[in-house]
Amino acid sequence: MVRLAIGIDVGGTKILGGVVDEKGMVLARARRVTPARDPEQIVRMIVSIVEELRRVAAGPYEGIGLAVPGQFDERRGSFVRIANLALMGFPFRSRLEEALGEPVRIENDTNAAALGEWRGGAGDGHKHFIYLALGTGIGAGVIVHGRLLRGAHGAAGEIGHTVVEKDGPQCPCGNRGCLEVFASGGALARRAAELAELRPDSLLATWKREGRGVTASDLFHAADQGDAPSREIVDEAVRYLAVGVNNLIELFDPTVIAIGGGMAQLGDRLLSRLAAAIRLQRPGSPDVSGRLTQARLGDDAGLVGAAAIILQRGDL
Amino acid sequence: MVRLAIGIDVGGTKILGGVVDEKGMVLARARRVTPARDPEQIVRMIVSIVEELRRVAAGPYEGIGLAVPGQFDERRGSFVRIANLALMGFPFRSRLEEALGEPVRIENDTNAAALGEWRGGAGDGHKHFIYLALGTGIGAGVIVHGRLLRGAHGAAGEIGHTVVEKDGPQCPCGNRGCLEVFASGGALARRAAELAELRPDSLLATWKREGRGVTASDLFHAADQGDAPSREIVDEAVRYLAVGVNNLIELFDPTVIAIGGGMAQLGDRLLSRLAAAIRLQRPGSPDVSGRLTQARLGDDAGLVGAAAIILQRGDL
Repeated sequence: MVRLAIGIDVGGTKILGGVVDEKGMVLARARRVTPARDPEQIVRMIVSIVEELRRVAAGPYEGIGLAVPGQFDERRGSFVRIANLALMGFPFRSRLEEALGEPVRIENDTNAAALGEWRGGAGDGHKHFIYLALGTGIGAGVIVHGRLLRGAHGAAGEIGHTVVEKDGPQCPCGNRGCLEVFASGGALARRAAELAELRPDSLLATWKREGRGVTASDLFHAADQGDAPSREIVDEAVRYLAVGVNNLIELFDPTVIAIGGGMAQLGDRLLSRLAAAIRLQRPGSPDVSGRLTQARLGDDAGLVGAAAIILQRGDL
Repeated sequence: MVRLAIGIDVGGTKILGGVVDEKGMVLARARRVTPARDPEQIVRMIVSIVEELRRVAAGPYEGIGLAVPGQFDERRGSFVRIANLALMGFPFRSRLEEALGEPVRIENDTNAAALGEWRGGAGDGHKHFIYLALGTGIGAGVIVHGRLLRGAHGAAGEIGHTVVEKDGPQCPCGNRGCLEVFASGGALARRAAELAELRPDSLLATWKREGRGVTASDLFHAADQGDAPSREIVDEAVRYLAVGVNNLIELFDPTVIAIGGGMAQLGDRLLSRLAAAIRLQRPGSPDVSGRLTQARLGDDAGLVGAAAIILQRGDL
């Protein structure tokens, strides 16, 4: 008999749901736009996704797992921190369980994506595996000994808030010189906008005058087309990312680091640059750039991982 | 019946042996000076320690564990890297097992010390615990989920070779800008010697003229006595250490980080400075400096941990 669970990835712009089997295969999908402000509306939207999935794919399901962009405090039943969703202070789990009529499991979205990629993606078969989410922010989900590392307070894997420059600029997190300040998609988008403003000779400025939006992706495009100021900014950010990857390897010694998140859409344009920067960072050390790879599940990673929490045998 | 094992810590200057029980209590001790060059002499010295321990403390012992300053390749039966001991390329385990007439287990000394402190020292009762060895070099032994993290190739926990400055100076390891280059006992000793040479007005120069050796410890002494150049060097190194501690907390989320190794002898003079530097590093973040503590087992940590590997139940 096939074991099934429902996994739901609650993001700031969209909510993705799926019926997932033990091997990480997604048998049915549903999606909604995330309601802007009202927590009760988010609950209703999740309920409607579950109802749709139940209609489409025959059960029984062993349970419902959710991936959310924050840190959920199991004891208090609410979030310690949450990004892009109006759920702070809201009794998310109890309200959901009430509305759904059954228990749910809640996991951080990066951790869930790591579990998803480990279960049925780039980390399949690896005991020591890291999913590195490069998006607006930077985070990592870490599998050690074939188990998700949550740490003592569920706060492990925060590579975006490791310090890569002792006296670096203040990060919104309160720490100084965090990797996220130098190398996140958010940081790159800011630099791209600044560059379009400050350097009228740059390709980005031209694109802006033509009415195109200016994003981190545009910055990579411009760099690839030989625009010197864009290339400088991209190279600098990638070198900071190389420091982050180096540090993950020195501390966790994984066999694979899979790049996911919004910046993963840059594909080999990011990956090949990052591999080169890692070799440059470690001129006399064994080449570890081969441990880098692309995440495979794309938008499915979070919901597959959320379902994996339900379908786990033993500790995850 | 009390379960016993023999633990041996093979260091560059001394070899420490002990009979250890399940709770990490050391029931008998023996020590030798490490033979300078000949691997066979090291083997003979270890055999003589085991013989002495057998005479002093009644068995039966469940086995013999060794802590060594290197990374031992189980498959090849020799070291991948080894510090301060002439054992590279030598079939250490097979020769030892031949000479002792029984199997031995070999573990990296920092990992062993982490196990020792976790079993019967500062990490007792903590599921997520880090032993931070600050000595000539810098390393960490990491306990996650109540289990030693070795990583895929036995190379996890290398906080000394995480990069804290992107374009920093080359480290002997081949990487650039490693924490060890800025903040190890070795780095501080070099700075102390340079300072004594370059700044004839400094307290260190005075001490040198009086014929005293100039060490990292002297540098801390001089800083405490208000010597400005010494204080500058110490403060700078401690701020790099704070970056390292911050990064360990962000990535592993442990409840306790215990400071061990040679620099731990500086006691509160190091610990209070380090706590202050961590608060300075994270001006807007929750204060995590309270997770820092002193390792408790001193020189016993390695041999207690080496014995713990033998006495473990299930995976360590």
